[in-house]
Amino acid sequence: MDARLVNVEFLPAGKTLRVEHGTVVAGALLAAGLKSGMPCGGRGRCGKCRVVFKSGVPEPTPAETDRLTKTELDGGWRLGCTATINQDAVIYIPNGSGAAKILTHGTRRRVLASPSIRKKHITVEAPSTADLRSDLERVLGSLGIEKSPQNIELPFLRHLAARLRESNFSVTAILADGELVDIEPGNTESACYGAAFDIGTTTLAAYLIDLATGDEVATASAVNPQAGVGDDVISRISYSTSRIDGLANLQSLVLKEMNSLIKKLSDAAQISSSHIYEVSVVGNTCMTHLFLGVDPASLAQAPYVPVVRQMTALSAGELGMGINPAGRVHVLPAIAGYVGADTVGVVLASSMYNNEELTLAVDIGTNGEIVLGNKNRMLACSAAAGPAFEGAHIYCGMGAVAGAVDAVWLDEDGLGFSTIEGKSPAGICGSGLLDAVVCMLKSGVVDEGGRIADPEELPQEYAFLKDSLRMGGNGREFILVAKEKSATGEPIVITQRDIREVQLAKGAIAAGIYTLMGRMGVSAEDLDKVILAGAFGNYVRKESALGVGLIPNVPLHKLHSVGNAAGEGAKLALISKDMRGDAARISNEIEYVELTTDAEFQQRFADALIFG
Amino acid sequence: MDARLVNVEFLPAGKTLRVEHGTVVAGALLAAGLKSGMPCGGRGRCGKCRVVFKSGVPEPTPAETDRLTKTELDGGWRLGCTATINQDAVIYIPNGSGAAKILTHGTRRRVLASPSIRKKHITVEAPSTADLRSDLERVLGSLGIEKSPQNIELPFLRHLAARLRESNFSVTAILADGELVDIEPGNTESACYGAAFDIGTTTLAAYLIDLATGDEVATASAVNPQAGVGDDVISRISYSTSRIDGLANLQSLVLKEMNSLIKKLSDAAQISSSHIYEVSVVGNTCMTHLFLGVDPASLAQAPYVPVVRQMTALSAGELGMGINPAGRVHVLPAIAGYVGADTVGVVLASSMYNNEELTLAVDIGTNGEIVLGNKNRMLACSAAAGPAFEGAHIYCGMGAVAGAVDAVWLDEDGLGFSTIEGKSPAGICGSGLLDAVVCMLKSGVVDEGGRIADPEELPQEYAFLKDSLRMGGNGREFILVAKEKSATGEPIVITQRDIREVQLAKGAIAAGIYTLMGRMGVSAEDLDKVILAGAFGNYVRKESALGVGLIPNVPLHKLHSVGNAAGEGAKLALISKDMRGDAARISNEIEYVELTTDAEFQQRFADALIFG
Repeated sequence: MDARLVNVEFLPAGKTLRVEHGTVVAGALLAAGLKSGMPCGGRGRCGKCRVVFKSGVPEPTPAETDRLTKTELDGGWRLGCTATINQDAVIYIPNGSGAAKILTHGTRRRVLASPSIRKKHITVEAPSTADLRSDLERVLGSLGIEKSPQNIELPFLRHLAARLRESNFSVTAILADGELVDIEPGNTESACYGAAFDIGTTTLAAYLIDLATGDEVATASAVNPQAGVGDDVISRISYSTSRIDGLANLQSLVLKEMNSLIKKLSDAAQISSSHIYEVSVVGNTCMTHLFLGVDPASLAQAPYVPVVRQMTALSAGELGMGINPAGRVHVLPAIAGYVGADTVGVVLASSMYNNEELTLAVDIGTNGEIVLGNKNRMLACSAAAGPAFEGAHIYCGMGAVAGAVDAVWLDEDGLGFSTIEGKSPAGICGSGLLDAVVCMLKSGVVDEGGRIADPEELPQEYAFLKDSLRMGGNGREFILVAKEKSATGEPIVITQRDIREVQLAKGAIAAGIYTLMGRMGVSAEDLDKVILAGAFGNYVRKESALGVGLIPNVPLHKLHSVGNAAGEGAKLALISKDMRGDAARISNEIEYVELTTDAEFQQRFADALIFG
Repeated sequence: MDARLVNVEFLPAGKTLRVEHGTVVAGALLAAGLKSGMPCGGRGRCGKCRVVFKSGVPEPTPAETDRLTKTELDGGWRLGCTATINQDAVIYIPNGSGAAKILTHGTRRRVLASPSIRKKHITVEAPSTADLRSDLERVLGSLGIEKSPQNIELPFLRHLAARLRESNFSVTAILADGELVDIEPGNTESACYGAAFDIGTTTLAAYLIDLATGDEVATASAVNPQAGVGDDVISRISYSTSRIDGLANLQSLVLKEMNSLIKKLSDAAQISSSHIYEVSVVGNTCMTHLFLGVDPASLAQAPYVPVVRQMTALSAGELGMGINPAGRVHVLPAIAGYVGADTVGVVLASSMYNNEELTLAVDIGTNGEIVLGNKNRMLACSAAAGPAFEGAHIYCGMGAVAGAVDAVWLDEDGLGFSTIEGKSPAGICGSGLLDAVVCMLKSGVVDEGGRIADPEELPQEYAFLKDSLRMGGNGREFILVAKEKSATGEPIVITQRDIREVQLAKGAIAAGIYTLMGRMGVSAEDLDKVILAGAFGNYVRKESALGVGLIPNVPLHKLHSVGNAAGEGAKLALISKDMRGDAARISNEIEYVELTTDAEFQQRFADALIFG
C-alpha cells in the first residue's frame, strides 16, 4: 500500500468512499459499513466472498486463479478477501454479502442521525439607525432565537464582528442542541462532520462521519504512540505516576496521534478539519483517563476505582482537538475501572440492552470484558486474561501482522496453516495459536489438562505428528512450522509454557463468563446469542473458540463475530443524542461484578483451566 | 501614603477593613460602605464631617485646628475629610454621618447576598470493595447530588483524585448555582470571596466582597493602563483596529492591571486570590469589549452597534483572570454602543427601575450617559460632552489630583478657591471650572451667551474683579489665581475658549436630558429625584451644576451625588443572582434614544448653549 488515495463505489448499496491505494476489498467493505461474508476467515480458501469489479479491475491473485473460472475472472469476478483496489473502482457486491447480511449478524445497528450539531445558513440584517441591535442579537434574530445562549465561547465573540462583515452578513450558524455556538462565513451547510475514535491500548481507530446523513466517509488507524512507554495499561499508569510530566506526556502523545488521524480523515474525504464539530471517544477506562489528562493512578490500586465514569460534552478547543474549536468532545461513559467506555460501545452497538434475547458479549484483549444480559438486567465483569491472545508472552508469538500464522488446521493433507497476507511464516498470532491448540487437542498432542504428550503416546491416526514433537530448552514443544519453511530460519514451535499461557487466558475468560452466568442463574442453553467483539473476536475461528472451551458451548449459528463493536458504539454515540443517552443509561444500569474478590470466580477459574 | 497597611474599625457599624497607611478617613468610610456627609465637598471648611478617633489618633491638620475646639481635639475629634489613618485605629462615626444617611442618599442599596457560588465542607467516603463508585460520584454522593454536572471543567477532573487523597477525603466542594465545579482540600468554607470591577476609560476601581455576607472587605484602584495609547474611547478603538496585535495588547493591558488589583485586594484582606470565585465587571461598552478581547471597531462607525450586549458567565480560567480558575466572570449587560454596563450599574444601584419616583440619573464623563424614568418606562441616551469636565482641552485644565483648583467661590472676602489636598494651585479641574463659571456669571464677567465682558462693563458691585480681566493670546481671559500664588509661576486663567468648551459640554448634557424629558412628556417639576453619578458628579457642587443649567432646575433636596454608582451596581451584581437578572432586564427594557440622528436634540443643543 502507499499513500495514494482512490475512490471506490459499492453497488447495489451505492456507497462511495476514498481508500488508500492497495486496500483489500474486504477492508474497504468494512470501512463502508458493508460486509462481505468470509466463512474461511479471509484466507482465500472458500471462494464465498465473491465480488464483481465493474471498473478498476485488478490482476487476479493466485487464490483467485485457483478458485474462479476463466469466464468469471474475465467478467471481473474476484474474491473480496484477496482482491485489492489499485485505482478508482466500482464494485458490485452480490446478494447475501451486502448490507442485508450485516443486520442479521448484528454488527451494524442503524439509527436515525440526530447529532447535537446542526448548521443553518442565514442572511443577517446589517445594522442601521433603525436597527441598533448588537451583532449577537442580529444573528440570534435571524435564527428566530430569543434568548442569549447559556454559554458563549470567547473565540466566537472575538471573531463574530469580522466574520459578519467579511461575508457581507451571509453566514452559516453552527447550533449545538439548538444553541448558537459559532458562525462561519458564507454557506457551509453541507459540510458538517464528526469523528469517532476507539482508543485501544495498542491501536487507535478513527472514523469520519457525515453528521447530516450518519454515513461514514473515511476511516484511518494508527498505533497508539503511548505503546512506546509500555504495552499494557499498568505500564502506562506506572509511567504516568512515576514522572512529574508522565501524565502530560501520555496525554499529549495520544492527542497528537488523534489529531494526525483527523488530518488523514480530512484529507481522504477532501474536507476541512474545521468542518468537524463533534468527536466521540471510546476506550478502556485507563485510555479515556489518559486522553483527558486525568490521573489514572487509582486504577492501579485496589479497589481500582476510576476518577470519573460519566461526563458531559467537553470543549474541543480546551482539549486541543484539531477540529473546529467550537466543537464538542463526547467521551462515552465507563462502567468501572476495568470495564470502560469501549464495553459500553459494544453494548450500545449490540442493542442487547433493548432486546429480550439473552446475550453474552465478550471483548477479548489483555483483559476480557464480558457482559451478559438483556433489557431486563445486565451484568459485566473484566477477566485478566493476559496478553496470550494477542501473541505476547508466547515463545514464537507475534501480533496479527503480515507473516503471522493466523490459522492452523488438520485435514486429510495433514497439518496446514495460513499466514497474514500469505507472507513467509515468522511467528504465530492469537487466532493461529488457538487453532493450533485445538489441533493439538484433537490429535492427542495435548491432553485436556494441557500436558504435551510423549511422541509414543500419540494415537495411531495421528502418528504422523510424532516428528513434530521434541524436547526444547523448557520441556516438550510442538513444531508447527519447520525451520526450512520459516522466515526466521528457526522452527515455529508451541511450547509447554505457551499451552499454560493459553490455559490461563482461556481459564480467566471462561471463568468470568460462568461467574456472570451463575449470578444470573442461567446456563449455556439459555443463551440466545454470543457476540465476540474486538480484533481477536473478529479473526478467531468460532470452532476454535468453542473447541478450547473459551466460551460456553452454543450452536454455531448463535455465535457472531462483530469486529470493532466498540468503534461502532462510538459512531452511534457520535451521530445521535439518543444513543449518548442510552450509553449513560447502560453505564448506570449495568451491574458490575468485581472478580478479584469473588470466591466463586476463583473456583470457576481452577475448573476452567481444563480444556474443552 | 505608602504601601504599609493598617487596620481600621468603624463604630457603631462595627465594620473593620485594611487600608493603606495615610488613607483619609472619608476614603476609608467610602471603602467600608459607610459615608461621612461632606457638605463642603471635603474641603475642611464646614466642619460637618466630624469623627472621633477612639485609638490611633493622628496629629490635627490646620483645617482641624481652625474648626475644632481644644477640648474636641483632645477628645479625639477630627474632620473626616482631612484626618488620615496612620496606624491601627478605631473611629466612631457620630449619628447622622453613618450608614443610615447613605440609605436616604440612595447611594447604597442593601440586597440579600445570594451569590452563585456556595462552599460546603464534606467528608467523602473512601473507595472500598463495597463501594466502587468513581471519585466524582463519591463527591457528588456526599453532596446529595444525583446527576453529573452539566459542565465539567477539565482542570477539576485533573486534580480531583489527588486532592481527595492528599486531604484524606476531607474537602470543600465549590458549587456554582448548585452544580459542583471544584473541590479544595480541607475545610475552606469561610473563605468565599468575589471581586467587582468598574473599568473606566481612565481609572479602574476594584472591590473585594465576602460572598457569604455581601460585606466589602477591601478596595483598590489604578489608572487604566490603556491610557498609554490614548485618553478616550475613540483612540483606543483606533489603536485596536490599526495594528495586528492592537486588540490583544489592549486586552492584555487591562487584564494585567485587573490581576494586579486582585493581588492588592487579596493582600489587603490577607486572603488567597484562589478563594475569589466570582468577578463582576462594569464599564462602558468599549471597555467591556476590550476586556473580553472583542473587536470594538463597530463602535467607531455609524450606527455604533456593539458586538455583544448581554452574555452569560464566562470562565475565569479561560479569560486569564487571576482568581480561582474554576471561577466565573459576569460582565454586566450594556444598553447600546455608548450606553454601557456602567450605566446599567447606575440604574441597578439607584433602584429607579423598581420605583414610582420619576428619576433622572446623569453620569458625566467624556460622554454623559443619561437615564430618565421609573418602573413603568425608562429612556437612555449618551451625549458627547467632550472632556471639559475632566479638565482636558481647558487652557489651565488638569485632572482631579493634588494641586487642582477644585472649588471657587465669591463671598464677602472676594473670590476664593480651594485646591485638592491644599497644595499650591497648579491648574483647574472640572468641579473648579464649573464653580468658576458660576462665579463669572454671577459677577457679570461672563454673560448668558458665554462672552467674557470688557472690564468696563462689570457692574459696580464686582468692579474689584476688573484687574482679573485681561487680553491673552486668544482673546479675553479671566485670571483666577495670580502668578504669585500659582505653583507654576504662571497665572491660572480661564479663557474665552474655555468658556466655549464648557458651553459645548454643558449644552450636550442638558440637551440630552431635555430630549429624554421631551420624549417622556415630562418637565422639571415632574422630576422626583436627580442623581449625579461618577467622579465629577460626586465632586461638583450641586449649586454650580444648577447654576450653569447643566441639569434641570430642581430643588436642592431632590439632587443627590451618589459617587461611583456604576461600581455599586457591579457589587450588587456580584453578590446576587437576582441583581444580575435585574441587570439583564434593565438592559432589555430600557429604550435607547440615539441623539446623533435626533432632530429635536439638535435644536435643544443650540438652545442649551445659553447658560442658566
